[in-house]
Amino acid sequence: MLGTVLYGPRDVRCVEVPEPKILHPTDAIIRLSATCICGSDLWPFRGWNDVTSPLPMGHEYCGIVEEVGSTVTAVKPGQFVVGSFCISDNTCPHCRFGFQSSCQQLEFMTGAQAPLARVPLADGTLVATSELPPDDLIPSLLAASDVLGTGWYAADAARVQPGSTVVVVGDGAVGLMGVLAAKQRGAARIIAMSRHKTRQDLALEFGATHIIPERGDAGVARIRELTKGIGADAVLECVGMKESMTQAIQSARPGAMIGYVGVPHGVELDGQELFFSQTGMLGGPAPVRRFLPHLMDLVLQRKINPGKVFDLTLPLADVAEGYRAMDERRAIKALLHP
Amino acid sequence: MLGTVLYGPRDVRCVEVPEPKILHPTDAIIRLSATCICGSDLWPFRGWNDVTSPLPMGHEYCGIVEEVGSTVTAVKPGQFVVGSFCISDNTCPHCRFGFQSSCQQLEFMTGAQAPLARVPLADGTLVATSELPPDDLIPSLLAASDVLGTGWYAADAARVQPGSTVVVVGDGAVGLMGVLAAKQRGAARIIAMSRHKTRQDLALEFGATHIIPERGDAGVARIRELTKGIGADAVLECVGMKESMTQAIQSARPGAMIGYVGVPHGVELDGQELFFSQTGMLGGPAPVRRFLPHLMDLVLQRKINPGKVFDLTLPLADVAEGYRAMDERRAIKALLHP
Repeated sequence: MLGTVLYGPRDVRCVEVPEPKILHPTDAIIRLSATCICGSDLWPFRGWNDVTSPLPMGHEYCGIVEEVGSTVTAVKPGQFVVGSFCISDNTCPHCRFGFQSSCQQLEFMTGAQAPLARVPLADGTLVATSELPPDDLIPSLLAASDVLGTGWYAADAARVQPGSTVVVVGDGAVGLMGVLAAKQRGAARIIAMSRHKTRQDLALEFGATHIIPERGDAGVARIRELTKGIGADAVLECVGMKESMTQAIQSARPGAMIGYVGVPHGVELDGQELFFSQTGMLGGPAPVRRFLPHLMDLVLQRKINPGKVFDLTLPLADVAEGYRAMDERRAIKALLHP
Repeated sequence: MLGTVLYGPRDVRCVEVPEPKILHPTDAIIRLSATCICGSDLWPFRGWNDVTSPLPMGHEYCGIVEEVGSTVTAVKPGQFVVGSFCISDNTCPHCRFGFQSSCQQLEFMTGAQAPLARVPLADGTLVATSELPPDDLIPSLLAASDVLGTGWYAADAARVQPGSTVVVVGDGAVGLMGVLAAKQRGAARIIAMSRHKTRQDLALEFGATHIIPERGDAGVARIRELTKGIGADAVLECVGMKESMTQAIQSARPGAMIGYVGVPHGVELDGQELFFSQTGMLGGPAPVRRFLPHLMDLVLQRKINPGKVFDLTLPLADVAEGYRAMDERRAIKALLHP
């Protein structure tokens, strides 16, 4: 079959790879209905992460179960499933505490930019729908696999409450899903930090009530102005850079939580500053599995339409163009048809 | 009157000072039933904070209202009151959000190691009892002013739940109050990190179920062992040093919150490490005022006895000996009779 492999910086190709096989009795093989490119796929693509050997790409997935290992009981061939980018058993103490992204058997999904993929720990990782979903919901169900679940976690970690004033730092796909999540959780004011027209428009569609194009001190000043000097009740940090984290902290009111889901790069936090700001912090890789049943339900009931975040659709064979389009910010997020 | 003044490193004296007067219509003057020395008073005493001019000392207080300013309505002369070390109006947005320690009119109490003290913003800061409390409850009511409220905030910020496994890092007065707070909030296991017999004994009396004398990696290993490799559900960091913060983070399970109330000194947090540990953090100066009515009630109903944390009682004139005893760790906390 054709699968996506990264050979080095900016060298991503759709090449012939072996079909995945059941390796462990807890595995499932799924035939992907759709897959996509994640913002985090751009790190190794840009050479920010070392690539020492050819890397099978893709960790967002949904599709039809093709085959299951001998001990798999929760899903069966023919069912439509969505799984988290974090492979988890969903039974260990960390999973039961709601932090499946720190599962004692944690693995990260890989090789999903392909027609078929092997999902380890299928019982713990996959969630099946009761019937096959209509085609038009596939993009939104795919989004639940990572980007929606991650934005949702940011809102959860930031403890967005009904009536809250929420700031979302970052207008990438995850930030936009953070806007959607804040809206679903009843936030009264959702301030999206964005300077790109297409992303601003999508943020407004997902529920943003205010757009602030300024960054840094000017952006913080605008938030202070909007909140009468108080600061936001909850902040979603969806970038992971020093500047964005500083902006997040300075936008938060004392006692507010920052849910941070952008993997921090070069971020050092001064303990004493954080102390006197009284800003709370909770982040990490999103425990998408915790939210997956609820998110799939919202999609199936057509209450949310996170699939709108895909503004580029390509056949799998053109995956390299998807990477380039996202790298050059011509696209927010590219969906791939295997 | 005699009041406590710090003139420079290790030079603290009880000297003749002017009696406090009403300066603003929102002030109250109280006659202290008791006052005490705080661990944080040791910083300028040890020369860790610069002392550029003579410093009136003392921020923990309870006593009888002597006089009130013209706009004060919540308390009146003759009433017994306890106030927070943070002066707050209790009406601004930060106060209403429960973070009185970030009040828009925030001041820090000072000059309370004396027979009389001026309390600004009396209506927002002071809480009166319905009648004069019996003398034997004075130490516990005094504790509510800071050290108990601070330990309580650590447990609140760490979200200690009934049944939780809680680690308390730090066996100073605040750490011991953290143990008491965790117990009151229904923690099932309270692991106190302490290597000093008198503090271990007090921790056990306040509700600790386990004592771990080891520090650093060895201490973390013991916690991992006790929690079957999972880590604690909640961690109270009551020191503020790099080593104690590292220990707190490494003791926490993914998804756990660390309530940190020791003012961080030399603590830098690596964003990426914190991210992948999935440890939540919330700290700051404790909003004692939020908890004060409840804590005073627990004391008045004799459900808690935080006053036990005072293991040295001195007349105010001997305040310097109190500082020395705490500095040399001969005493946990010194109560002063004005």
